[in-house]
Amino acid sequence: MTIGVRRRMGVEERRQQLIGVALELFSQRSPDDVSIDEIASAAGISRPLVYHYFPGKLSLYEAALTRASEDLAGRFMEPREGPLGARLLRVMRRFFDFVDEHGPGFSALMRGGPAVGSTATNALIDSVRQAAYVQILSHLRVEDPPARLELVVRSWISLAESTALIWLDGRRIPRAELEVQLVHDFAALAAVSAAHDEEMGTLLRRVLKDEPTDGPFSDLVARLIALAS
Amino acid sequence: MTIGVRRRMGVEERRQQLIGVALELFSQRSPDDVSIDEIASAAGISRPLVYHYFPGKLSLYEAALTRASEDLAGRFMEPREGPLGARLLRVMRRFFDFVDEHGPGFSALMRGGPAVGSTATNALIDSVRQAAYVQILSHLRVEDPPARLELVVRSWISLAESTALIWLDGRRIPRAELEVQLVHDFAALAAVSAAHDEEMGTLLRRVLKDEPTDGPFSDLVARLIALAS
Repeated sequence: MTIGVRRRMGVEERRQQLIGVALELFSQRSPDDVSIDEIASAAGISRPLVYHYFPGKLSLYEAALTRASEDLAGRFMEPREGPLGARLLRVMRRFFDFVDEHGPGFSALMRGGPAVGSTATNALIDSVRQAAYVQILSHLRVEDPPARLELVVRSWISLAESTALIWLDGRRIPRAELEVQLVHDFAALAAVSAAHDEEMGTLLRRVLKDEPTDGPFSDLVARLIALAS
Repeated sequence: MTIGVRRRMGVEERRQQLIGVALELFSQRSPDDVSIDEIASAAGISRPLVYHYFPGKLSLYEAALTRASEDLAGRFMEPREGPLGARLLRVMRRFFDFVDEHGPGFSALMRGGPAVGSTATNALIDSVRQAAYVQILSHLRVEDPPARLELVVRSWISLAESTALIWLDGRRIPRAELEVQLVHDFAALAAVSAAHDEEMGTLLRRVLKDEPTDGPFSDLVARLIALAS
């Protein structure tokens, strides 16, 4: 009989529970505003016991961020099948799912600040950016990217981050619109770069030639033609 | 006769001198790697005297950043005369001048980290972003921006930052190309937004109708047509 008897958790299980509780609280309020007391209370354990598993709030925060980073990087994984525009759009949907789920925690992290701007957290953010960068190059089937392609991909990743942050601040634009728009932004930034550089032009033409007429890239061209007329 | 006698500086004058010395050192190496000893030595005073004017490295760093922020915000000022594309291009040139002059200090600041990611420095960065945002809206002659325009302007500002950071990392693309490209990126992001939203379409048409055929926006259209053919 185990009624009334709380099963004793192992160390790793307890750590994972605390990380989960912390992420849940950070999805409602900024990590700066969440105390160890609240985390302890939500996990149903004492404050000193939290410190037994994590020496301080920063170490718990970093562990939570590590799990969230792995989660996000995992959402970038997309089979190398079918048109590129549709693949990128599916990734954008999963990215906005993540942003939506983590809300205040994501904002606080990306905006930096006392509790969240440590060297370790910045390195984690960079590792997620790098995972996104590597994924995109692999989908474009480019192994040794020229400087201009690296610029387009990395600066677009930063654009996706800022777009998500601005969306979180009031959610005044439907996220589905922004998901499609970011796919279009990628094509637009690549087109601007290609308009300045022949190598980028060749690459863009190769990438776009297999896009279907009902995919997001063709959709953009149709919309731009309608806009210009 | 003042030979051999160093004139004694007033408090404010000495503070300004130390800020200037610090900014000069931060333009060569990251603030994290510059010690108070080096700043004292470059200013020709003792280390304790530096602490007399600034209680710690962070306060000197924040004072230096305040001056640099005012400098940068000042470079966004552009007369409301002539075509918009040419105005934005002039501002982009001055922005890259600033980035070029401050190199490692700019990188360290924008990437965050132990010495540079304080609440005060983040607030200063946000104030510069806000100054850029206000300037652009004023040039577009928009007082009460719809959410989609705010998104385009703010996310483009973030794109300009990341483009400058990527450029600083190796300077593998001529900056003049990136200055023009960022003007084109602005038009491209606005066009994508306009392709999704009628209000943005109306705004973009109003803004572009007075652009001359030899300006950067017409240049972009000509380049894209050449690319597509």
